[in-house]
Amino acid sequence: MARWIRFKVEGRIGFGTLDGERISVYEGDMFAKRALTGDQVALDAVEVLIPCDPTVMIGLWNNIASAAAEQGRTKPDEPLYFFKPPSCFLSPGGTIVRPKSHDGRIIFEAELGVVIGRRCVDVSESEVDDVIFGYTCVNDVTAPVVLRADDTFPQWCRSKSFDTFGPFGPVIATGVEPKTLRIQGLVDGELRQDYPASDLFYSPRDLVCRISRDVTLFAGDIISCGTASGTLTIESGATVEIVIEGIGTLSNSFA
Amino acid sequence: MARWIRFKVEGRIGFGTLDGERISVYEGDMFAKRALTGDQVALDAVEVLIPCDPTVMIGLWNNIASAAAEQGRTKPDEPLYFFKPPSCFLSPGGTIVRPKSHDGRIIFEAELGVVIGRRCVDVSESEVDDVIFGYTCVNDVTAPVVLRADDTFPQWCRSKSFDTFGPFGPVIATGVEPKTLRIQGLVDGELRQDYPASDLFYSPRDLVCRISRDVTLFAGDIISCGTASGTLTIESGATVEIVIEGIGTLSNSFA
Repeated sequence: MARWIRFKVEGRIGFGTLDGERISVYEGDMFAKRALTGDQVALDAVEVLIPCDPTVMIGLWNNIASAAAEQGRTKPDEPLYFFKPPSCFLSPGGTIVRPKSHDGRIIFEAELGVVIGRRCVDVSESEVDDVIFGYTCVNDVTAPVVLRADDTFPQWCRSKSFDTFGPFGPVIATGVEPKTLRIQGLVDGELRQDYPASDLFYSPRDLVCRISRDVTLFAGDIISCGTASGTLTIESGATVEIVIEGIGTLSNSFA
Repeated sequence: MARWIRFKVEGRIGFGTLDGERISVYEGDMFAKRALTGDQVALDAVEVLIPCDPTVMIGLWNNIASAAAEQGRTKPDEPLYFFKPPSCFLSPGGTIVRPKSHDGRIIFEAELGVVIGRRCVDVSESEVDDVIFGYTCVNDVTAPVVLRADDTFPQWCRSKSFDTFGPFGPVIATGVEPKTLRIQGLVDGELRQDYPASDLFYSPRDLVCRISRDVTLFAGDIISCGTASGTLTIESGATVEIVIEGIGTLSNSFA
């Protein structure tokens, strides 16, 4: 088990494993050939970056059994998803910004992110643990009024991909069993979402197998497993934390 | 006016401008600092690649006035869009492949693609011609049964992003006036779609200004302007061509 982190210090980008408040620095490629440099840096001496560069974040809808039951939905025949592109990604500690074009409410969604470790397609159940690198915290920031603003076309992509609407991190935890994880969302320290990953309709392993059947995934790509219900509006000045014990805490403020 | 093309020859990737059947080779960055090398290669001696590497392709829906009128729709308040990620991009001449998970019909959609030339956000009308690098042909391949398979969630992203569902190219034409362009789709040489770019609700320039208001765009990103009506199913073994005079012909077969 390791917690991989990426950071900037003195203008240079580095990566390593986080142990308490210290980072053991590596060189090479986080997902491939890598080696310890022997250097250590203190977490509070660096700027934490997103831990990888996904070509895309795949976001799930209707993937939590309890939320589906409350809203009269059932498990879908296939994972239902939208995309968040690289332009919206935001580092841990970064500020979520209200879009200039929209003054409606903005919500957070606490989610578990599955990080792919190597290029793969049509992944079988027996291969899936080899292509999953680890897990991270995702805040699937959404403008729900934009989502439903046009009766003919729900704007899943636009409402979830304004600049800064894709925070994730701070680490990718390897060697954790996703079934045991619990996903929490807090606003200014108050618990607002709290649900177990065992409540997913499609588990992380299911999602990788199903989605990759006809879609190539790349190292660093993220599948974000969807969110549970909860009261989720965030007000200007608030701090949102996505907490998954065994991974870490993703903290972002809202401007 | 130039037609930029990217290619592979003897295992190396290069780029240059296409004039007739000859490529004048450049070095450097197509979108930034670049210089003629003095070399020329014959088009038929190279493998043509997608002309750039978008971080995302933004695809428009309900952006053609004539199609909207036929179907009782009006101009939407904002451009309505979905995303096609890099995993689905396909080179000119490449084969569109039926997804293993789906045996329903597959359609092509002939579209005009706007190629962004540099990182930009909140682009004004006076700046927009500086951030648009040029125009390309797009085939927005779609599995329409997948799109409508779930009553609660139209699958715009999944139905349009199976591997090979994003052919574009073969060139990026600079110095063309998009208002004058005509977009045609042919199946095995038979004209199936034919509409003028002047029929777009949101023009290429409008789209860049509107979408970039709260979304950063990067060099090489593509906004595909949406498609007109037409009978569009493609059968196994067919060849689909997207033809835009002044740009070129994007040709792909369907396995």
